[in-house]
Amino acid sequence: MSLHAQRTHRHLADDRDLFYYDDAASPPAAGRDARDTRELPAMPAGARMRRDPLTGEWIPLASHRMNRTHMPARADCPLCPSRPEGPPSEIPASDYHVVVFENRFPSLNPREAQPSSTVDGEPVWPEHASDGRCEVVCFTSDHESRFAELSPARARTVIEAWADRSRELGERPSVHAVFAFENRGEEIGVTLAHPHGQIYAYPYLPPRSAQHLRQAGQHYERTGRDLLGDVLEAEQRSGRRVVARGEHWTAFVPAAARWPVEVHLVPHRHVLDLAETHDAERAELAWLYPRLLRALDHFFTGVDGAPIDLPYIAGWFAAPTETGAPGRREQPGSLPRLHLQVFSVMRAPGKLKYLAGSESAQGAWVSDTTPETIADRLQVVYPAAGRA
Amino acid sequence: MSLHAQRTHRHLADDRDLFYYDDAASPPAAGRDARDTRELPAMPAGARMRRDPLTGEWIPLASHRMNRTHMPARADCPLCPSRPEGPPSEIPASDYHVVVFENRFPSLNPREAQPSSTVDGEPVWPEHASDGRCEVVCFTSDHESRFAELSPARARTVIEAWADRSRELGERPSVHAVFAFENRGEEIGVTLAHPHGQIYAYPYLPPRSAQHLRQAGQHYERTGRDLLGDVLEAEQRSGRRVVARGEHWTAFVPAAARWPVEVHLVPHRHVLDLAETHDAERAELAWLYPRLLRALDHFFTGVDGAPIDLPYIAGWFAAPTETGAPGRREQPGSLPRLHLQVFSVMRAPGKLKYLAGSESAQGAWVSDTTPETIADRLQVVYPAAGRA
Repeated sequence: MSLHAQRTHRHLADDRDLFYYDDAASPPAAGRDARDTRELPAMPAGARMRRDPLTGEWIPLASHRMNRTHMPARADCPLCPSRPEGPPSEIPASDYHVVVFENRFPSLNPREAQPSSTVDGEPVWPEHASDGRCEVVCFTSDHESRFAELSPARARTVIEAWADRSRELGERPSVHAVFAFENRGEEIGVTLAHPHGQIYAYPYLPPRSAQHLRQAGQHYERTGRDLLGDVLEAEQRSGRRVVARGEHWTAFVPAAARWPVEVHLVPHRHVLDLAETHDAERAELAWLYPRLLRALDHFFTGVDGAPIDLPYIAGWFAAPTETGAPGRREQPGSLPRLHLQVFSVMRAPGKLKYLAGSESAQGAWVSDTTPETIADRLQVVYPAAGRA
Repeated sequence: MSLHAQRTHRHLADDRDLFYYDDAASPPAAGRDARDTRELPAMPAGARMRRDPLTGEWIPLASHRMNRTHMPARADCPLCPSRPEGPPSEIPASDYHVVVFENRFPSLNPREAQPSSTVDGEPVWPEHASDGRCEVVCFTSDHESRFAELSPARARTVIEAWADRSRELGERPSVHAVFAFENRGEEIGVTLAHPHGQIYAYPYLPPRSAQHLRQAGQHYERTGRDLLGDVLEAEQRSGRRVVARGEHWTAFVPAAARWPVEVHLVPHRHVLDLAETHDAERAELAWLYPRLLRALDHFFTGVDGAPIDLPYIAGWFAAPTETGAPGRREQPGSLPRLHLQVFSVMRAPGKLKYLAGSESAQGAWVSDTTPETIADRLQVVYPAAGRA
């Protein structure tokens, strides 16, 4: 592995994996050998998922998550380093650059997978072990920071961590798709303020990835080309919704945006996941993405003219793993191209788009704005966001 | 039409349709010929929808909805009858039983449909007129009431209105699916407190209905039987999650429930939509459904032991229309059976399930509870809800 970061693998008190990723150019932060001194209960075992016969979707049951940590006091933040003056956190070291560890309250749970069965002995309801994995990615040890404020060097280390974890999780035979994402903002239910993201390794193909796979496959059969490559070219030809043009990445508001704020960040090369990106692509991403996030934090302003932190969800849509789309990696053009989607439920300062009957029940989105309106605003705030 | 209700068709000042449905057994309420005296701007025309190439989904753009009425003062409720002492509302009559009218701020808009085109001249982005229809259904003229409190006679009139509108909207050649639903509770963004629901007639197959169609079709090909019929039999055999057993309807928590509270109400006969239900089915539904909603309003209790109004979404999933699934009505068993889904985002008093990265971006739900836990509670509160 030629990582542009230094990785150190450790274990937490309940045997969960923890990985320190240290910036390539700086000396590693201290305490890589610090032990987790907490007495932790064993991880919940044997979590299950059931197939919904009406939709064909798998639904993991994670009732233990009801007890997860919810907005702890600043001094009890489980994602800060363990400092001598405070209680031990999830990270034993007294400082870190970037750290990834297994979620203590996972939605998907690999421990002691039990054999498959059916609910109440009825074949219409298959039930399997939810044999995936949930990881937490801490972007910085600075509790008050945010991804938008990371230096290119630190953002690069996060990208290395994402790429490394994507590769490793994607090689597990039970994993169909790896999804790295960040939820930012209490408005969307974030329970920990420390800047962090998550990685879900799904033991089934999640619905959106399944759609992407189907559409990309149909387009490839019809044209011999990869779908998002053609979309990217169309956006570049039009230019109407392009927010940022780099050498390796272009950001644009998609022509059929469904959210009140939405932007996609697409690589110019057809790569399937972050592990396939090369050095120059990662280097550009490391300054372009934080800048895009700074622009989003200037999308709305309050009555006093001050910018409003945008609650957002940012997710890396990668192609399914070999398990998720068997044999398809031999024809990579038929698989979805990697890209990032960032979107927000905020439709005006203090006003959220609610997902009611049409969205929540039917899955049918209606946009309350237009993609061009979103682009008009981002085309103003993105250039300004360079001056951080 | 042999309606168990009396229908009167009128028009509002901007030419929108309005239908009074009066209870069969009572004399019609007053003022069926009252005119709409308001000066209203013309309805927005020419709304469009775009196809998202990555998912294949249609996204209507309804930017005019940003200006819709939001929690008006009690005296300005647009869904109350027009009373001499107040401003005119959307309903010209001074009283009504049940009324249905075209939404003034529709997400789907049939007026002056323009020809199809593409965004920026790029074939990857087809754009059509959003040639559907959005209607509002007022369940009662009593602003302070709720569906759970409707008498069986009044609930029956709502059912007749749903059935009548489903039939009429389903016959429009541009309509692929008709979806009658209710959003209840400010927690899910309801903007008008008056008890009401909505009907969306989609000019495309919405994603959930498309899944239902696909799964039902595959099950029928494999077994020759209708899918939800087999699910219903399995639920009845098990009994573990059954909440209510009527002569014509059974309510159960589905074995793969995805929401913190969820219950399905399923007819014993394979009918495709509400228009196909017969008299005895509608009569039972008219008392069973309000009772089920009363039970849901006792699902959670506050610290003082008082029941908590449950924010909920209730939606009638019907089979696609002939346009939505051409030729399939000749093999009705291959089409999804009609059923109602009622669910809530409330996972504890004052706590909501947020739809963050996994749900909002990937469409992948994780349940924070188990279907059996939900059923345990409903099996206690449903019997008690008979004593209204």
